[in-house]
Amino acid sequence: MATTEFQDRFPLPPGSTIGIVGGGQLGRMLAMAAARLGFRVAVLAREADSPAGQVSAVEIVGDYADPDAVGRLAAVSDVLTFEFENVSAAALAAAERAGAPIAPPERALAVSQDRVDEKTFLNAHGLATTPFAPIDRAADIAPALERLGAPALLKTRREGYDGKGQAWVKAAGEAEAAFIAIGAQPSILEARAAFVRELSVIAARGWNGEIAAYPVGENRHAHGVLRTTTAPASLSPAVQAEALRIATTLLQALDYVGVIGVELFELADGRLLVNEFAPRVHNTGHWTLDGCQVDQFEQHIRAVAGWPLGPTAPLARVEMTNLLGEEAHDWPALAADPSARLWLYGKREAAPGRKMGHVNRLSPLT
Amino acid sequence: MATTEFQDRFPLPPGSTIGIVGGGQLGRMLAMAAARLGFRVAVLAREADSPAGQVSAVEIVGDYADPDAVGRLAAVSDVLTFEFENVSAAALAAAERAGAPIAPPERALAVSQDRVDEKTFLNAHGLATTPFAPIDRAADIAPALERLGAPALLKTRREGYDGKGQAWVKAAGEAEAAFIAIGAQPSILEARAAFVRELSVIAARGWNGEIAAYPVGENRHAHGVLRTTTAPASLSPAVQAEALRIATTLLQALDYVGVIGVELFELADGRLLVNEFAPRVHNTGHWTLDGCQVDQFEQHIRAVAGWPLGPTAPLARVEMTNLLGEEAHDWPALAADPSARLWLYGKREAAPGRKMGHVNRLSPLT
Repeated sequence: MATTEFQDRFPLPPGSTIGIVGGGQLGRMLAMAAARLGFRVAVLAREADSPAGQVSAVEIVGDYADPDAVGRLAAVSDVLTFEFENVSAAALAAAERAGAPIAPPERALAVSQDRVDEKTFLNAHGLATTPFAPIDRAADIAPALERLGAPALLKTRREGYDGKGQAWVKAAGEAEAAFIAIGAQPSILEARAAFVRELSVIAARGWNGEIAAYPVGENRHAHGVLRTTTAPASLSPAVQAEALRIATTLLQALDYVGVIGVELFELADGRLLVNEFAPRVHNTGHWTLDGCQVDQFEQHIRAVAGWPLGPTAPLARVEMTNLLGEEAHDWPALAADPSARLWLYGKREAAPGRKMGHVNRLSPLT
Repeated sequence: MATTEFQDRFPLPPGSTIGIVGGGQLGRMLAMAAARLGFRVAVLAREADSPAGQVSAVEIVGDYADPDAVGRLAAVSDVLTFEFENVSAAALAAAERAGAPIAPPERALAVSQDRVDEKTFLNAHGLATTPFAPIDRAADIAPALERLGAPALLKTRREGYDGKGQAWVKAAGEAEAAFIAIGAQPSILEARAAFVRELSVIAARGWNGEIAAYPVGENRHAHGVLRTTTAPASLSPAVQAEALRIATTLLQALDYVGVIGVELFELADGRLLVNEFAPRVHNTGHWTLDGCQVDQFEQHIRAVAGWPLGPTAPLARVEMTNLLGEEAHDWPALAADPSARLWLYGKREAAPGRKMGHVNRLSPLT
């Protein structure tokens, strides 16, 4: 969808309705940011009384892949955005028929949905990734492993998040089992990246091409799930500049509108590889909620509404810790801790590993 | 309603429902703060799609004085609170029948609803106010004016806000006209306070008696409506301590739970008089939204939910400016100003003088 087609509608005045596909915590925090700026919010959620629906003017209950449901959301929205990237082409077409501009653009969603397309796109724009090979059948694995070196990581091309749909392949003899383990579907084999740490950069681009990036964060995962982000990360000026260059290149290449989250691997020699990007607000940007004047959620709303982007300078050093499953039961202690800024997502069931909330701990910038 | 009656229900766990009587901007910002902590919110609003209803899980449309509507809200709420003080006794009785604890307590609402009761209560607890006299008929004005000195300010005992329901009486001959001008109803005549500036203190008290106060703000009004609050105000330590003593005395005397706003007159000799108090979050506390880790809205939710109070130390010096009526049409310039933190309330009609939003401008603490 051409950016220019809707330019006369932007900037959207307060009172306009922002449509959000997705009823989870990212949608919830987007809805709260939109409310701050005087917008109404409509969400499409799988279940009634969803985390996002609880704080929105309109909650449409339906499946994200159902073109009719997406069309109904688009019909009451002045712009449509997403809390996740796995949006079907049929759903986007329905939104287009309903006449709602979409941000981020379709192309960014499509590219990020497929790990082979994503890495191919990144490499084509001069952004380095770990070496990889597309895998269509188990027999493709052995020659790819030969080229990439063992061990290598087998991932489904589509879907999969937080470490799901992944298997390490240590030798050619494991190919068949690994392929079956991830569901015997189109996949990607990725060379192991010998990274010293995982970083991420959260950046935004407006309808007018304006770009703003937050300071880089350093991430720690456990069992494939993000545990903590610390920002601003302690970085050399060269690495900081390179992270900004990567984000800028990607935003421009995608003709992007909104906030993007770019996960990076820092190698021992200081080089950065792009692990993946998410065309949405990102868990590794939650530190901005208490660490910046304009957080990533308000920044995304500003961008998709055609407003000027806000300042991204850090006000404090923040350590963000996810509260997974029963960890959220610690809320009494966290509520009593004056150094902890608590965010809870309004989810009823604390299933193991489920993201229930997060805590930001602030310390002075050094 | 006895505080102790419900003590075993508190602290309310995340997922509990906070009921808010009132659908305006104070309710909206309370609802957003509640969502941050993982609560659901139900509001009672006069019209559908109200500023608060837009960000709440449940919106009941009805009159605040209708016991049935308040009872329905109470029935779905784990605790009931208010964005304004003019709550009828019948409405509170309905909430009590529905079994919902109420915070702040009935007595605080009742005392603050009547200007004579309010000043009598304050004086009885050693808190100075301007001298005053109850006025039941026009003939009461002349002798009261004799005692208080001219000019004096005639106000309705009940209702009236933002300068409405007030008339200056400069001489006994104006008594009849002034009494008619304010609706010929039970009134109060107040001696003119020779104050050098207006201050306010926003403070909170928890179910357990814990008290926390924000730094004092300095307020500027125009045509009876608040224009700006600057906080922390530049004060002598003695005045700061006296403001804290006033707030603490009042909170304890009312056996209060929640956030209270206390308006003060500072006299030339540094003495403080209490102008009035509001048993709710307060316009002069909006600076805390961007100036403190825990703002007055989260503090109120913490208090009424039985959570520990949050820190009240200022992170910055803030000037809060109300956006009245068409001033909100300046949103494009305000959105582009990196020093302006913008809050808009989701109101459709920018009627003259109507509070449409506010702006917080931050500068370093000195």
